[in-house]
Amino acid sequence: MDTISKAAFRRLPRYHQILSAYEGLGREYISSRELSEILEINETLVRKDMADLQIRGKQNQGYSISTLRHRIEEFLGLQDITEALVVGAGHLGTALATYAGFEQYGLKIVGVLDNDPSKIGSTIGSHEVTSIFRLASMVQKHDIKLIILTVPKDHAQELTDIAVKAGVVAVWNFTPQELHVPDGVRIRNEQIVGGFMALSHYLKNISSTPTE
Amino acid sequence: MDTISKAAFRRLPRYHQILSAYEGLGREYISSRELSEILEINETLVRKDMADLQIRGKQNQGYSISTLRHRIEEFLGLQDITEALVVGAGHLGTALATYAGFEQYGLKIVGVLDNDPSKIGSTIGSHEVTSIFRLASMVQKHDIKLIILTVPKDHAQELTDIAVKAGVVAVWNFTPQELHVPDGVRIRNEQIVGGFMALSHYLKNISSTPTE
Repeated sequence: MDTISKAAFRRLPRYHQILSAYEGLGREYISSRELSEILEINETLVRKDMADLQIRGKQNQGYSISTLRHRIEEFLGLQDITEALVVGAGHLGTALATYAGFEQYGLKIVGVLDNDPSKIGSTIGSHEVTSIFRLASMVQKHDIKLIILTVPKDHAQELTDIAVKAGVVAVWNFTPQELHVPDGVRIRNEQIVGGFMALSHYLKNISSTPTE
Repeated sequence: MDTISKAAFRRLPRYHQILSAYEGLGREYISSRELSEILEINETLVRKDMADLQIRGKQNQGYSISTLRHRIEEFLGLQDITEALVVGAGHLGTALATYAGFEQYGLKIVGVLDNDPSKIGSTIGSHEVTSIFRLASMVQKHDIKLIILTVPKDHAQELTDIAVKAGVVAVWNFTPQELHVPDGVRIRNEQIVGGFMALSHYLKNISSTPTE
């Protein structure tokens, strides 16, 4: 049941976002055509994704938004709570540690760590910043499986090693460092600049055509 | 020349990141096999992407890292400077406005705007925070084509409308709001939680198998 293509899998967050937005507008159904237009993909592909998710549409109405949204959440395991540590209390770490939107996806930040003495002991959201030297003990104490890494590039590998040794099996990596981890540990590289690259290509191509 | 598949296009930032990492390690060549293993995609697909980028490998050596990296930068227009405004000076806006990594991709932040009187006039990095009421005039004054949107969801559409009316043609949207824009305006939705969704699925599936 829980097998869909990698490409389909990557579309699930966007489906989820669109469904939430439509739900917020009071809509109950969405058609494969609407989904295909918003996602800019073929309608056949949307129908295939829905079939993979074992979701059936109603003739002339489309898919039930709440059913589909719950199915995606179930598929992704978002109904269970995942506890995580934010490693690095810079601007990005602070933004992530205080982001209210994670809760609805089951992501619960249980601690924030940094190596800066002026930050340790201060408060970020509801968290007191803990010394980075306590990374291993906090991972063990809270049985943490996931860290959110927002440290300077040069510290990324060393801290990953420590966290993995202590029991972490997933690293959400916001640093530009390519991390090396043992088999069985999953890395998700969040290269923020990737979004800009897509827009840059577009901006370049419109500005090369005469506008006046 | 500048036509590659959407899927290939989405891989370019990751290729670029891997190439930069390898270059940093002093490597000059990379093989399609290495790229396929790091990206976890089929080697045939890597070869096809390289062919689309008009990059040829050397027998037994692979692709020249610097040639490939430059080709990607050229393709994405990263060698030209793109000036942008950060709209919203919260934690995420501050993180983006001060992120040193953008410069090497040609992205130059030229201003930061917010509606909070206590922030207006203060300094973020090298920028003085400007009142959000000056959004249209700043877009026009600097001929801005791109805004980076990090405001609360409820203000996202209104500010997008103002920016687009003033001349913006690309919105890098970090809010969870689905934005509506006229034809010819490009939106890039940066749904940060998407990265977590991918890891959540993995964490769910490992924790459902017995570990002891």
